[in-house]
Amino acid sequence: MLKHNSYFDGKVQSVGFERNGHKATAGVIDVGEFHFGTDAPERMTVVSGELHARFTKEAAWVVYPAGTYFEIAGKSGFDVKATAPAAYLCEFL
Amino acid sequence: MLKHNSYFDGKVQSVGFERNGHKATAGVIDVGEFHFGTDAPERMTVVSGELHARFTKEAAWVVYPAGTYFEIAGKSGFDVKATAPAAYLCEFL
Repeated sequence: MLKHNSYFDGKVQSVGFERNGHKATAGVIDVGEFHFGTDAPERMTVVSGELHARFTKEAAWVVYPAGTYFEIAGKSGFDVKATAPAAYLCEFL
Repeated sequence: MLKHNSYFDGKVQSVGFERNGHKATAGVIDVGEFHFGTDAPERMTVVSGELHARFTKEAAWVVYPAGTYFEIAGKSGFDVKATAPAAYLCEFL
């Protein structure tokens, strides 16, 4: 059973699925800057375009181009920014 | 502006976006077999799991694992099948 998720007035949208007992989402981040909290640790793989991410407000933004990924600890959060729409795969670890 | 698409009673869902004048969708195909027609040519890249595809009813199914892609001619169509949910990026060429 797939599940559509929409955040920030539809500027971040994804489709959630589960395979082999692991949850993941495939989605798109539109132009803008967004903050997400995490419960489980997550791996965000950029599949089209690029995302900028930082893990604390004080940290420098890091650019993640398509084909790269970053991981976020559980019970934390991250800022993510796109200057053009970017597609991602988010896996819950 | 992102756009949520849902086909086959929600068994195929995607989020559509546009970047640099090119349209694409990031989505998920649930367990099942589906037929899609194409208007523009498309490139389907599997980003998680695997998809089976064939381009005529007579053709043998080909398995496309994550990290691979197939292209479909415009004004045609293809059958796609998943035995577990699979995420994809569809680029309109």
